[in-house]
Amino acid sequence: MAKAAIMGFGTVGGGVYGIMDDSRSRVSLSAGEPIDVKYILDIRDFPDHPRKELFTKDFNDILNDGEITVVAEVMGGLHPAYEFTRALLESGKSVVTSNKELVATYGTELLSIAREKNVNYFFEASVGGGIPVIRPMHQCLTANNIIKIAGILNGTTNYILNEMITKGKSFEDALSDAQKMGYAERNPAADIEGHDACRKIAILSSLASGKFVDYNDIPTEGITEITLDDVHYATQLGCVIKLIGYARFLENGRVFSIVAPMLIDKSCPLAGVNGVMNAIMITGDSVGDVMFYGAGAGQLPTASAVVADMIDAVKHTERSKKIFWEKPDGDITASEEDEKFAYFIRTGDSAEAVRAAFKDCRFVENAVAEESAFVTRPLTKTEVNDGVSRLSSVISRIRVFG
Amino acid sequence: MAKAAIMGFGTVGGGVYGIMDDSRSRVSLSAGEPIDVKYILDIRDFPDHPRKELFTKDFNDILNDGEITVVAEVMGGLHPAYEFTRALLESGKSVVTSNKELVATYGTELLSIAREKNVNYFFEASVGGGIPVIRPMHQCLTANNIIKIAGILNGTTNYILNEMITKGKSFEDALSDAQKMGYAERNPAADIEGHDACRKIAILSSLASGKFVDYNDIPTEGITEITLDDVHYATQLGCVIKLIGYARFLENGRVFSIVAPMLIDKSCPLAGVNGVMNAIMITGDSVGDVMFYGAGAGQLPTASAVVADMIDAVKHTERSKKIFWEKPDGDITASEEDEKFAYFIRTGDSAEAVRAAFKDCRFVENAVAEESAFVTRPLTKTEVNDGVSRLSSVISRIRVFG
Repeated sequence: MAKAAIMGFGTVGGGVYGIMDDSRSRVSLSAGEPIDVKYILDIRDFPDHPRKELFTKDFNDILNDGEITVVAEVMGGLHPAYEFTRALLESGKSVVTSNKELVATYGTELLSIAREKNVNYFFEASVGGGIPVIRPMHQCLTANNIIKIAGILNGTTNYILNEMITKGKSFEDALSDAQKMGYAERNPAADIEGHDACRKIAILSSLASGKFVDYNDIPTEGITEITLDDVHYATQLGCVIKLIGYARFLENGRVFSIVAPMLIDKSCPLAGVNGVMNAIMITGDSVGDVMFYGAGAGQLPTASAVVADMIDAVKHTERSKKIFWEKPDGDITASEEDEKFAYFIRTGDSAEAVRAAFKDCRFVENAVAEESAFVTRPLTKTEVNDGVSRLSSVISRIRVFG
Repeated sequence: MAKAAIMGFGTVGGGVYGIMDDSRSRVSLSAGEPIDVKYILDIRDFPDHPRKELFTKDFNDILNDGEITVVAEVMGGLHPAYEFTRALLESGKSVVTSNKELVATYGTELLSIAREKNVNYFFEASVGGGIPVIRPMHQCLTANNIIKIAGILNGTTNYILNEMITKGKSFEDALSDAQKMGYAERNPAADIEGHDACRKIAILSSLASGKFVDYNDIPTEGITEITLDDVHYATQLGCVIKLIGYARFLENGRVFSIVAPMLIDKSCPLAGVNGVMNAIMITGDSVGDVMFYGAGAGQLPTASAVVADMIDAVKHTERSKKIFWEKPDGDITASEEDEKFAYFIRTGDSAEAVRAAFKDCRFVENAVAEESAFVTRPLTKTEVNDGVSRLSSVISRIRVFG
């Protein structure tokens, strides 16, 4: 019998407890022994909970209980989640988490403590919610050099873009509907400005390269500038617009990561990922493209990934698995000059002016009067900026994926 | 340093050796120790191979070498692969395989021997080639009750159907082109009649239920009867036709599995799986739908899954992982009466005759003169047969997925 604790009894924490309670026999079969939830840490009171004796407000109850071998940290936020996680790992307990903010910020240190103490710090639920991606990437694609990752990592923005594409809603209307549906927060900045996706691609970039990629170094654009006109042009090009977390792993060991809206050809499986769903496409040198698709958020999907991590931690008590990354020696961030994208650009300038500014561009039939729309050849950031500087106005500039 | 052997130096075996040789340091890092290929078993001579001293024609060289801890069986076919695998497991060596025929036929016994000897029999590459699915299903979805599996499990048939759908080729022309491209064998029966997909859904069904599902008990229809007219009707319905390996896990513990062409709504991610690609959608009670997509065949994708299994076997030497199924007590096969499908049906009969035979059916606009086309409500096999028996002719009858 293994003893566990849950820190944070919000949406995900409630789901974790629910699965552990409803599925005792399956969890036991998978883990090789029953897993008993001994504590639930929350600052709030839950006097009506059927197991109210499990609740505590004192973290030390968990930390100082030698029986506890695995703790689910589903409280979110950086503090005190960081201090709690560090103390638990240092005391020889495994921790599993859905907290992308914490993993992206303090993952390097926490993974290092876990290795040193021969316990595990697992974070499958921090990227893609219930979608298995961290473990498959690490374990099943281990015979591959990872070349590229491209993911739809944020369900809120995917829902908004999908409503714009399929129902012709404006960005503002789609956002408002997402808020009504509970898919977007009242303050939606973290989602629509790309910060949530940025944390997730930072985690995937770190894991794939084995070296810490700091999310502060990742250029991040959101979808607030995307208009219905852009969406219509994309349709004409046989594309959809998606917010993509992208990483490419260069042969020199550097990593180029970015979050930005991109035009994606409809033949690409990522283009068919609709609504609030997430998907992560990983390109390996042997396996080619593989994609993992599913619910990127939500109580039970996320909780099911947390519980799977708890089971794996119990199976690997006192044996650290090699899911980790280290602090790199020096800067491994590739610059935007190391990567070329084709760009879709709209301008108030004439076709002649466009041709003078960009060679080899392909014009798109004009949906809006008095403007030119075109797709460039693949360009570095300097090259596209150089071309744009020769135009007198730019209405939109969106990268093309692939 | 772990010592390994490769049995069979065909396409996959060559890929396995190539990856092991090209990626020694990454394999070593992942496995925790280098893995050295000590033998390659093949009945043919390879006098020009740079490591020709590795080749042997004598299986006993591998069996009797106490240093060998893991063997990749990539020879294919049932015999002698079965006898070799059994002997290796019994002698305490782990075996990994891409041989779906062997896993689907003798998996129960081989997995049982592996457990008894505390070694592993891994078969990630037997379903979906390089796509991680066996291990993620077993490990990452372990907190879920698996409710349903639906997969595009055969690249050849998916290529043929895709050519029919996107290029308007007849089945015969698409098959002939698939053969020219090397996607279909000269004798294509195993693919186009659904037998290959049947072995794979049998493996997935067994793994998800924990009980052996015999492929001989799985109703299997191929795609040889699918015509361009069917494809055009599907388009009108907003669907594509795909060959689907399907399994549903009933609450009573029984398993309903089938292989058949099905109409799939274009909004379903499976509908966007084109060309020779494969995808497996798994529905869990907590996580909902997750989908795994990638190359279902090919030298390097398949070999990369075999090598990942070899690495996992080396990491788990003398510790059997719980990826297995057992022989069930009694029959767990659900009958076709336990599952309802909507059916797309074409008949030479009039709309009135159709209405008399099937209640609540939805007619499809008539692309072909002198026939009626319609979609039924969800029906059991007896119900649809009953309706069909009231018609004087049936041109097509295809299940609708979802």
